[in-house]
Amino acid sequence: MAGERRHRVVIVGSGFGGLFAAKALRRAPVDITLVARTTHHLFQPLLYQVATGILSPGEVAPATREILRRQRNVEVLLGDVTDVDVEGRTLTAEAPGTTFTVGYDSLVVAAGATQSYFGNDGFAAHAPGMKSIDDALELRGRIFGAFEMAELETDPVAAERWMTFVVVGAGATGVEMAGQIAELAHRTLPGEFRRIDPRTARILLLDAADAVLGTFGDELSTKALRRLHQLGVEVELGMKVVGVDETGIELVDRYDKPHRVECMTKMWAAGVSGAPLGARLARAAGVETDRAGRVVVEPDCTLAGHPEIFVVGDLMSLDRLPGVAQVAIQSAKHAAGQITRRLRGEPTGQPFRYRDKGSMATISRFSAVASVGKLRLSGFLGWLLWLAVHLLYLVGFKNRVTAVLHWFVSFIGRGRSERTVTLQQVLARTALIERDVSEPERVLRARGGR
Amino acid sequence: MAGERRHRVVIVGSGFGGLFAAKALRRAPVDITLVARTTHHLFQPLLYQVATGILSPGEVAPATREILRRQRNVEVLLGDVTDVDVEGRTLTAEAPGTTFTVGYDSLVVAAGATQSYFGNDGFAAHAPGMKSIDDALELRGRIFGAFEMAELETDPVAAERWMTFVVVGAGATGVEMAGQIAELAHRTLPGEFRRIDPRTARILLLDAADAVLGTFGDELSTKALRRLHQLGVEVELGMKVVGVDETGIELVDRYDKPHRVECMTKMWAAGVSGAPLGARLARAAGVETDRAGRVVVEPDCTLAGHPEIFVVGDLMSLDRLPGVAQVAIQSAKHAAGQITRRLRGEPTGQPFRYRDKGSMATISRFSAVASVGKLRLSGFLGWLLWLAVHLLYLVGFKNRVTAVLHWFVSFIGRGRSERTVTLQQVLARTALIERDVSEPERVLRARGGR
Repeated sequence: MAGERRHRVVIVGSGFGGLFAAKALRRAPVDITLVARTTHHLFQPLLYQVATGILSPGEVAPATREILRRQRNVEVLLGDVTDVDVEGRTLTAEAPGTTFTVGYDSLVVAAGATQSYFGNDGFAAHAPGMKSIDDALELRGRIFGAFEMAELETDPVAAERWMTFVVVGAGATGVEMAGQIAELAHRTLPGEFRRIDPRTARILLLDAADAVLGTFGDELSTKALRRLHQLGVEVELGMKVVGVDETGIELVDRYDKPHRVECMTKMWAAGVSGAPLGARLARAAGVETDRAGRVVVEPDCTLAGHPEIFVVGDLMSLDRLPGVAQVAIQSAKHAAGQITRRLRGEPTGQPFRYRDKGSMATISRFSAVASVGKLRLSGFLGWLLWLAVHLLYLVGFKNRVTAVLHWFVSFIGRGRSERTVTLQQVLARTALIERDVSEPERVLRARGGR
Repeated sequence: MAGERRHRVVIVGSGFGGLFAAKALRRAPVDITLVARTTHHLFQPLLYQVATGILSPGEVAPATREILRRQRNVEVLLGDVTDVDVEGRTLTAEAPGTTFTVGYDSLVVAAGATQSYFGNDGFAAHAPGMKSIDDALELRGRIFGAFEMAELETDPVAAERWMTFVVVGAGATGVEMAGQIAELAHRTLPGEFRRIDPRTARILLLDAADAVLGTFGDELSTKALRRLHQLGVEVELGMKVVGVDETGIELVDRYDKPHRVECMTKMWAAGVSGAPLGARLARAAGVETDRAGRVVVEPDCTLAGHPEIFVVGDLMSLDRLPGVAQVAIQSAKHAAGQITRRLRGEPTGQPFRYRDKGSMATISRFSAVASVGKLRLSGFLGWLLWLAVHLLYLVGFKNRVTAVLHWFVSFIGRGRSERTVTLQQVLARTALIERDVSEPERVLRARGGR
């Protein structure tokens, strides 16, 4: 076999799409290069637990090369893919201080999505999103830091502003964040402060739509709303955000009446758009992107006219499929299957069929809503299902064990083990605001000098 | 008792000195304000395990206010103390966007030490120290990042530069770092890379002195040296660092001959100097600082002419005591005892007597050296003692449990659970280099705007 060149598959991204595409090709006669902007695989469904001090970054973001260590046909490279030459079948990637190109026979693009501010990128500095470990650590620093600042504040109006937390977007991530901040304020922090009472913190969950967890259906949406009220979360629906600044947020309600909420800590879980690579790839290949910047693909997840290029996961626009882990995993497996069939000389072009395995969201400890097929679970039963599914999907034995331990500490006890705030968060925030950087990519690129 | 003003003790710092001073006053009829620059208590002896991916920040840096939650006579405030008015008995502290003053009847200054570059502050950007969680995360990013960059590098000379790690300073921290990087290269990372062999990494441990762990005595020093050689660490003694730049380090040997080592990753564990607050306090109170910027105190840890001001721990200059945890803990307890005696009307001024409980350093898993009284332990026995002592002193039950679990993963297995590298490290580094900031204090202050 020496010297024989095997079919070369390049995968872009180390999220659910990229990782599962690589794994699904473990027995295929191919050489795989996985290129990603981070060195870790992010288990995004638990990111809110990093942002609220329950889990450590390592537990939800193990090193990609550690996960793929035993799969000898994969190499993992750190790089931010900036361009794809669809004719020459090569892509260009940048890493700190260096640029490199990689050639492919088949390409699987699973570059994911970034937070979308619907054209108001200036909101980002004041209301970070929840898409990366950096986002989660930034929010963790802001949330715990806000209580610290309130304890110092002598002006009651300013103190109230520090004690007001606004979450924009009442999908799963927003509901989970609001619920966890309420548990922080009511269970973890009381007793730790002498001047303020953390239980008086105000937590607002806003959405322009008229329901929380709208995609879960009326029954679960109503139950989630009731549980949020029990936790002390104020839910304001039909509210559109029109402005975000350092000390507050500007809204208009459904009658176009303006409102302002004074608050220092804002977080954005309201929308996503495809990674910038998507638009560049679409332009190069002569295909469309949808309104959310996702690449329009053929039914088999390839680009029109380019059967060797697959786009999967959050960056893929197909049949209005949602940007959830299961779509990424299943479309990645579909792409891997198509590549394998082609190598075997079997007919390809089979359409991707998504099997909805259901969705779930935790609202607080011991309480979650879950929708699986026709089954609707809520409360403790929903939470048990949540626990089982997340343990099953968390990568690696040791991460499961330590996560269970931290859950035990947080759910049975009242503590949060992972709440260390570092100066790096302060520095990064200052750098971001000063440079008006809203995309981490630009920063990675700006770093070239080192 | 209502309305009666109790004796007010202000403690500066949340390290071993600050925390143990507060705890020692738990039954005293005083109101305590602890002011610190970070919101956590750092268990510094295990910091190198954060830098090398074994432990998470939360495990070695629990929130100070969580530790002191049940001690109702303490309040904890976030603030960087910038000045002390020794006549007016008040101090001024800064927090992001705010400045506040606190009055005291007794003051315990336990502000600790920062890394010292012996006048060459420009080294800091290229060779971070090991004094804070930020330092450890920065080094973690650089160490794991160096292997990533080597995997990308096509020029063999540049790749070798990424695969060369230099630790300056062969005291406990330097020896522990060098040993852990060797274990990373030889146990954790092999198999994860496809182009480089992590086992070919070169790890250099440098010191200007002529022994490693000089303070441990000849027998243990020799044993430590032998174990480091077994691990593949090159130890170069009698080497003075005269220059540090992005791609290498300049040295002169004991015959004044110049040498250069090409290396991207450098870390500094060579010396410390008292926190800047020390010099300001000494000036205000009219006392001296020693060559390392530590405040010269009376035998009872007070300042001459100011029996109400104590300086303890790493910032204290007394009898050439070393900057170790036990000195900080014992001097803090002494200061607390003196305050209690004064309040009871008992005579004060008793000199502080340090009881040396010994010292220890891990070199690799299952191997440590320990010097306790006349006892000298090395190898597995030394390591068992290390394990027992560190479990005993780690703060909090849950931190003990998760640390043991992570040690199990790393020592019995080969993994490192906590190796997530974030963009924040990239941003912080760029910001530090661009602004030529060598003291975190300046950054905290510069942040005022938010």
